[in-house]
Amino acid sequence: MDPINLADAFTGFDALWSPRVVTAVNDYDVRVAKVRGEHLWHAHDDTDEFFLVLEGELDIALEDRTVHLKPNDVFVVPKGARHKPSSPDGARILMIEPSGTSTVGDRHEEVPDHVDATTGHPLGA
Amino acid sequence: MDPINLADAFTGFDALWSPRVVTAVNDYDVRVAKVRGEHLWHAHDDTDEFFLVLEGELDIALEDRTVHLKPNDVFVVPKGARHKPSSPDGARILMIEPSGTSTVGDRHEEVPDHVDATTGHPLGA
Repeated sequence: MDPINLADAFTGFDALWSPRVVTAVNDYDVRVAKVRGEHLWHAHDDTDEFFLVLEGELDIALEDRTVHLKPNDVFVVPKGARHKPSSPDGARILMIEPSGTSTVGDRHEEVPDHVDATTGHPLGA
Repeated sequence: MDPINLADAFTGFDALWSPRVVTAVNDYDVRVAKVRGEHLWHAHDDTDEFFLVLEGELDIALEDRTVHLKPNDVFVVPKGARHKPSSPDGARILMIEPSGTSTVGDRHEEVPDHVDATTGHPLGA
């Protein structure tokens, strides 16, 4: 592969809550997403989920608290933990999770139209 | 865990080529390191290695080319590929690799005094 600039990675798409796969590390994906508004309550039964905020701010509601992430903040949602990301003003985020992990997890509330239930799209798609 | 700011993560140590483990994602570590000068030729036989440059510039020499990474550039050194990171002017980098992965890999040239052969130190250590 050639190096990939994360800023460039965001130029090829506008869809919200619709991650692009930047690269893979073994059987893990490195994904980036543009987000704004609310995602949905969901849980990944078999994997942790890593978040890094690149721009903007991201809230991640958990059962017992909400964590507020600013640029350069990292957070890991533990395996099995119900969570709901949201970003009233929008953010750009990087996520790391096993390839094939669905954006809506293994358990989730009804998927709203504005959320893309996907295992990630190729960069440029 | 609480969110961890990557800028804060760098305040607790000065050692070069001596990664701190920021957090874990399943059995993978997210590590940060301050680097300057030259690392050493080495290879990880069983894992890819992910690099994200946060500040400064990083070169990664491979057998057949050298990739030059600027801030926000990501690159994955493929499993088994001999490589030698260097940064004449210094950089701050984030790496992702399986927990227990040694900084000098499974095959390496003689480890110079300025390189820390480690599987990563806890933040604040």
